[in-house]
Amino acid sequence: MSWDSSESWEQHLDQCPVPRGFRFFRTGIRFSPEERPGASPYAMNISFLLSDSPGTTAAAVATQNRYPGAPVQLLRERRLPGPLRGILINNKVANVAAPGGLETARRLAAAAALQFGIPEHQTLSVSTGVIGWALPWEPMVSALTTLDTHECSPRQFAEAIMTTDRYPKVAWSTAPGGPIMMGAAKGAGMIEPDMATMLGFFTTDAVVAPEVLQETLKRVVERSFNALSVDGDQSTSDMVIALASGATGVSVGSRELEKMWQPVADELALEIVRNGEGTAHVLEVTVRGVADRSLARKVGRHVVNSPLVKTAVYGNDPNIGRILGALGSALHRYDPRGTVDPRELTITIADCPVYRDGAFQIDKSTEQRLSALLAARSMDPELRGYPQDNGTVAMVLDFGGAAGEDVRVLGSDLSYEYIRENADYRT
Amino acid sequence: MSWDSSESWEQHLDQCPVPRGFRFFRTGIRFSPEERPGASPYAMNISFLLSDSPGTTAAAVATQNRYPGAPVQLLRERRLPGPLRGILINNKVANVAAPGGLETARRLAAAAALQFGIPEHQTLSVSTGVIGWALPWEPMVSALTTLDTHECSPRQFAEAIMTTDRYPKVAWSTAPGGPIMMGAAKGAGMIEPDMATMLGFFTTDAVVAPEVLQETLKRVVERSFNALSVDGDQSTSDMVIALASGATGVSVGSRELEKMWQPVADELALEIVRNGEGTAHVLEVTVRGVADRSLARKVGRHVVNSPLVKTAVYGNDPNIGRILGALGSALHRYDPRGTVDPRELTITIADCPVYRDGAFQIDKSTEQRLSALLAARSMDPELRGYPQDNGTVAMVLDFGGAAGEDVRVLGSDLSYEYIRENADYRT
Repeated sequence: MSWDSSESWEQHLDQCPVPRGFRFFRTGIRFSPEERPGASPYAMNISFLLSDSPGTTAAAVATQNRYPGAPVQLLRERRLPGPLRGILINNKVANVAAPGGLETARRLAAAAALQFGIPEHQTLSVSTGVIGWALPWEPMVSALTTLDTHECSPRQFAEAIMTTDRYPKVAWSTAPGGPIMMGAAKGAGMIEPDMATMLGFFTTDAVVAPEVLQETLKRVVERSFNALSVDGDQSTSDMVIALASGATGVSVGSRELEKMWQPVADELALEIVRNGEGTAHVLEVTVRGVADRSLARKVGRHVVNSPLVKTAVYGNDPNIGRILGALGSALHRYDPRGTVDPRELTITIADCPVYRDGAFQIDKSTEQRLSALLAARSMDPELRGYPQDNGTVAMVLDFGGAAGEDVRVLGSDLSYEYIRENADYRT
Repeated sequence: MSWDSSESWEQHLDQCPVPRGFRFFRTGIRFSPEERPGASPYAMNISFLLSDSPGTTAAAVATQNRYPGAPVQLLRERRLPGPLRGILINNKVANVAAPGGLETARRLAAAAALQFGIPEHQTLSVSTGVIGWALPWEPMVSALTTLDTHECSPRQFAEAIMTTDRYPKVAWSTAPGGPIMMGAAKGAGMIEPDMATMLGFFTTDAVVAPEVLQETLKRVVERSFNALSVDGDQSTSDMVIALASGATGVSVGSRELEKMWQPVADELALEIVRNGEGTAHVLEVTVRGVADRSLARKVGRHVVNSPLVKTAVYGNDPNIGRILGALGSALHRYDPRGTVDPRELTITIADCPVYRDGAFQIDKSTEQRLSALLAARSMDPELRGYPQDNGTVAMVLDFGGAAGEDVRVLGSDLSYEYIRENADYRT
């Protein structure tokens, strides 16, 4: 469902239908310096995603970081795909590398299960925020006792799970009379998915077998969230969870499910890059003519993650030399046996050919035109509350090979605002 | 020879002895908009390193980037180690990906050889600067005709080869009556050495066999320039060349050569990080307890290159969570078979233990103390003309393995000034 500029972003998100069988809840707690001597005051949102349908199935993908947070460890204990009824989410504190973190996550899930009357082993506790801090167990449990009286909309839920996000992210697809697919996501930094990404929650009221849900989730994530790269690292906490309540009684197979799901995931993935910490341009790199998709993706990621490419784009500078430098470095690193012929490379920026036959193909006027185009594609990285759609800076890196599908990678530039956001994050 | 604060940086560098048999030259050319319609006005330095000794031997290491510039291609044609007498260097234009670039490099080397009366095949043409532009052949050849009348000091030579460097970099070692080892280097961005790095020129008046010179160069570079990582990319142009004139008649073997060379290379390598584009802190990451040195280096580089770690250090924030996030991501990427046990990790920042047994070991007062220490270690990233020695931000990442030598990686933080420098580089 695309955003019509005659309405506000909030109004748009408030049209999101809630898939049958699901309910959303949120509350907040606030810590003053008096309550927590020696600690900074902070506010934390606590939200809950509930399925009222006992037969709800779930699937998940999670970070492959070797220092996974307690919520990722708890998720693994739940052994999805399988039944799942509820997800408790808090922002502000990530519950990573805090003493006893896994035990706290287990106890929080148990307390939430008790409050909502669902099985403990079908309940998750998910956290996002600062690493190393312990979760404030007592105020959280106290807030839980009234959480079931605070039902909210998907938009309010998406707001509650935000950290440094600039605006809430919700997307959906629906057919008249048919099942709904709805997703809410948060993510604005530390985004380098491999198997999974930031926090994403998908709900559908279709009837889906657990294995079909899991396989389709993997395929959908591969082309959406896994095509993003913002900071070059996988976070310790990222995960995507999908729940199917089956409340419509309408069964969907793998292909049908993918068709309703992919555009929703693609939309959320683009919003995550677009609202990244300090993002002024969205980079869209297409690697073409490389038979090995995994190699193509590594090369594409290396280019969108190159600080020299990123700063050039921020400066509206179509700097082919830096793209070339990053590419040559990536090929050396990721293609040691030289399966890709570097000499066949052509580079196109915004449909304009700029490199071919080992040399730049660009004159002063083309350079000025591209620079003006980059300037027009730039967003205000400090604007909050709603997405800015100024298009992407599209680069095609074509190695001339006959084989294979294009591989697309999305990333962001490197701006003053990125530094400000990330140098001052915890203060 | 260390810098005594009672003298200026210039005065210090002017004490650099010239190894016997060598001479340095420099001149400059300036382009006005009138001379080059449609192009920006710019100034270019042209310098020359000459050995008067016919028996001079040389060794080199160069970038492994798959899009090497014309100078790197010419260097390969010279098939070092072997005899070499002269190196022509220009800044401002890198001679990379410009049509006919290799032919221009060959012709420039030939013209310089003719001017200085040395064999053409023992002469190099080296360039650093903007990628994609063609070298201005005619003004350069015209400048060459008087270059031999402009002899200069090592310090003036080191200034002439600078691009965005904040100050000239020269280092040397000498024993009374013994041979001298002297090095000059430039480099301030795009520094991710693998086999080699930025531009570095070493000269010694010892008698050294070509193969010994080559092997020792590789070992010395491995522990100095190859321990740096600033932007995560190998440039298209980086190279280190060493010349031995033999003019003292004193023969040195491999061990003796390494002993006089390593401290000179280490000093230049540290200066290159310290004067990186927009560097406010030097990061010094030591990876301990990992048997596989190559893996240890990849992990260390990943941490010093993590934009989230870099921005945290810039903000004087001892952010253990970001170090952990980068480490977990690096282990997933570079140690797929899990040879390193992530659970044994301890992290120390500036001799202060901050992580052990899977949890942070840090309270508010330690955090404040570390933050104050980081603030004290920060440099003014806009100060030019001389190095600031405020120490490094030292992190030890100990995986508890019994084996192996420590691996040290130097890097820099990510500052507003880095963005300014790199977003506006060509304007």
